[in-house]
Amino acid sequence: MVERVTLRDVAARAGVSVMTVSNVVRGYRHVSARTRDRVQAAIDELGYRPNLSGRSLATGRSRVLALAVPDLRRAYFAELAHVFARVSTARGYRLLLEETGGTADGERSVLRDLEAGIVDGVVIHPQALTAAELEGLRRDTPLVFLGEDPRPPTADQVAIDNVAAAREAVAHLIGLGRRRIGFLGHEVGAPSRPSALRIEGYRKALECAGVAFDAALLVARRGGDAIGAEAALGAALDAGLAVDGLLCRDDLAAVGALRALRLRGIAVPGDVAVIGWDAIDLGASTVPSLTSVAPDTRALGERALDVLLERMDDDATPGRQITVGYRIVVRESAPAPLPDDRAEQLRHRGADRVG
Amino acid sequence: MVERVTLRDVAARAGVSVMTVSNVVRGYRHVSARTRDRVQAAIDELGYRPNLSGRSLATGRSRVLALAVPDLRRAYFAELAHVFARVSTARGYRLLLEETGGTADGERSVLRDLEAGIVDGVVIHPQALTAAELEGLRRDTPLVFLGEDPRPPTADQVAIDNVAAAREAVAHLIGLGRRRIGFLGHEVGAPSRPSALRIEGYRKALECAGVAFDAALLVARRGGDAIGAEAALGAALDAGLAVDGLLCRDDLAAVGALRALRLRGIAVPGDVAVIGWDAIDLGASTVPSLTSVAPDTRALGERALDVLLERMDDDATPGRQITVGYRIVVRESAPAPLPDDRAEQLRHRGADRVG
Repeated sequence: MVERVTLRDVAARAGVSVMTVSNVVRGYRHVSARTRDRVQAAIDELGYRPNLSGRSLATGRSRVLALAVPDLRRAYFAELAHVFARVSTARGYRLLLEETGGTADGERSVLRDLEAGIVDGVVIHPQALTAAELEGLRRDTPLVFLGEDPRPPTADQVAIDNVAAAREAVAHLIGLGRRRIGFLGHEVGAPSRPSALRIEGYRKALECAGVAFDAALLVARRGGDAIGAEAALGAALDAGLAVDGLLCRDDLAAVGALRALRLRGIAVPGDVAVIGWDAIDLGASTVPSLTSVAPDTRALGERALDVLLERMDDDATPGRQITVGYRIVVRESAPAPLPDDRAEQLRHRGADRVG
Repeated sequence: MVERVTLRDVAARAGVSVMTVSNVVRGYRHVSARTRDRVQAAIDELGYRPNLSGRSLATGRSRVLALAVPDLRRAYFAELAHVFARVSTARGYRLLLEETGGTADGERSVLRDLEAGIVDGVVIHPQALTAAELEGLRRDTPLVFLGEDPRPPTADQVAIDNVAAAREAVAHLIGLGRRRIGFLGHEVGAPSRPSALRIEGYRKALECAGVAFDAALLVARRGGDAIGAEAALGAALDAGLAVDGLLCRDDLAAVGALRALRLRGIAVPGDVAVIGWDAIDLGASTVPSLTSVAPDTRALGERALDVLLERMDDDATPGRQITVGYRIVVRESAPAPLPDDRAEQLRHRGADRVG
């Protein structure tokens, strides 16, 4: 059997003192981000797992955190749970996982059950409750919100800049000479908050490029999955929708779009360039592979945990809005722009084709 | 705000006594499967969530269970975690989620950490440790094993019949007139236990159909994902591999296979019929959509929880091997067989084409 990795091993690898490693693992605040990263890298390399027994007795804490997400079957939330499990474990916490189903009842149950006192803190990605309802249900347990939905003003929230990311994605499509760019996959009726922010970024990019916004190019999806997106886009195309680019609300919508387009003989990216959102692993293996907005889920998980641990030490800090990064993963469905002269030609061809 | 659903509401809906609902929720053994199903259906419909506070004080139990899986980012394990979270919550347990990384160290850590005493029981899907190692690491905490890997003889294990499922999948390909059927996606070097069982079923189906086994048609994958499968199958095809059917170890391998085949202009299912394993949601939206072996994950989660709760009541029962069902989800990549005469023609065509 392999020897158990100790704090001492991690300290040696990271080139810091055992006390510093201990501080990182316990989530103390006064460690620089750079040192924390170095220690975390050593923890990852060596596979160090803190020993929990005894410590909770000494501190009066359970050393258990909860993560509540709408549905683990959605690749984005599974990825988030994976990251959060990893960072929690590395810092000596166990992770309770709750699914809310994305419903108000599910979210209420999680927040109400905080009274059970099993956990030291909760990270929740709400989708249904309003800020006022969330505020009314909070207990003393420290709480951090993920995602874009309105939070109570006293609470911490970690998210990416959805408007900027959508704007950049659409600018990428414009850089490919596309002008009739659609948005696929928001909710029927009123868009959810993430959808609304992404549509806002989409509009801003069009505006910036001098392209008129056309509400007819927004295609809502019935249901939140790829099948719903395929049906919605398929119906729109069959009814005469003409687009040369698509920003999809998420990769599930993008996978549905690829299928709807292919079944109609519409080439991607030749006729329609497609960009998804979330950069799920399988997006590298579709035909064509998916260009997608990739939130920095590792930073999201780490920052959420940092903020939660700080909140556990000191609940007087005002609520903070923390933004983590993203990048556009460029693959086949919306490739890198061509050099300027080639792009210019395509722009004209594109205008002819869809005009 | 919606009123909290009570035991009484569930009892009324299910047409049973409050005491019976309570027994189901607490996981007592002496409730018939039929009654349990009826109560569970009422719990699902009404969205009942047991109130945990206080009860753990009365029973001396934490009412927390742990589920340890290799990697939540794999759709099959995310689905399993989803199901297990649902059934645990419905019966009044919280769920601790652990990722082992599929490594011996990760599995050792989970089992070793049982001493922390946070949980009443553990369900683990091991991939790396041997039965002897698992036995050596067990504590008093009740433990149920998922999956195919060898378990200690004293332990309970829940799985599907992989040999039968693989056999049925390959029989489906044979029913489509395919004769040069490959297996894609086992591990380089020695196949893992699930791969070995699936290859055994694959061999049996061929044998039964009078088709000679050909080791050249087994294509191992480097890495466990779709990209690795695409690379492996692509290299094999480029080196001259000729197949007219493929059973893939999992849907990730199948998605990689679809891409490798398409990039080479090989039609699915026309030239090669493809069957995956796990029936992940996105398999309905690939082009073509994926035929796949679907383990009954709901039954898997429920039976694992039943067995764990029994084990918590009575640890003297000998280890049990419990098998739950599966079905073949038939979609475009390996469609339903044609009527006999058409199938006969295709069989000849198939033989000509690949011979």
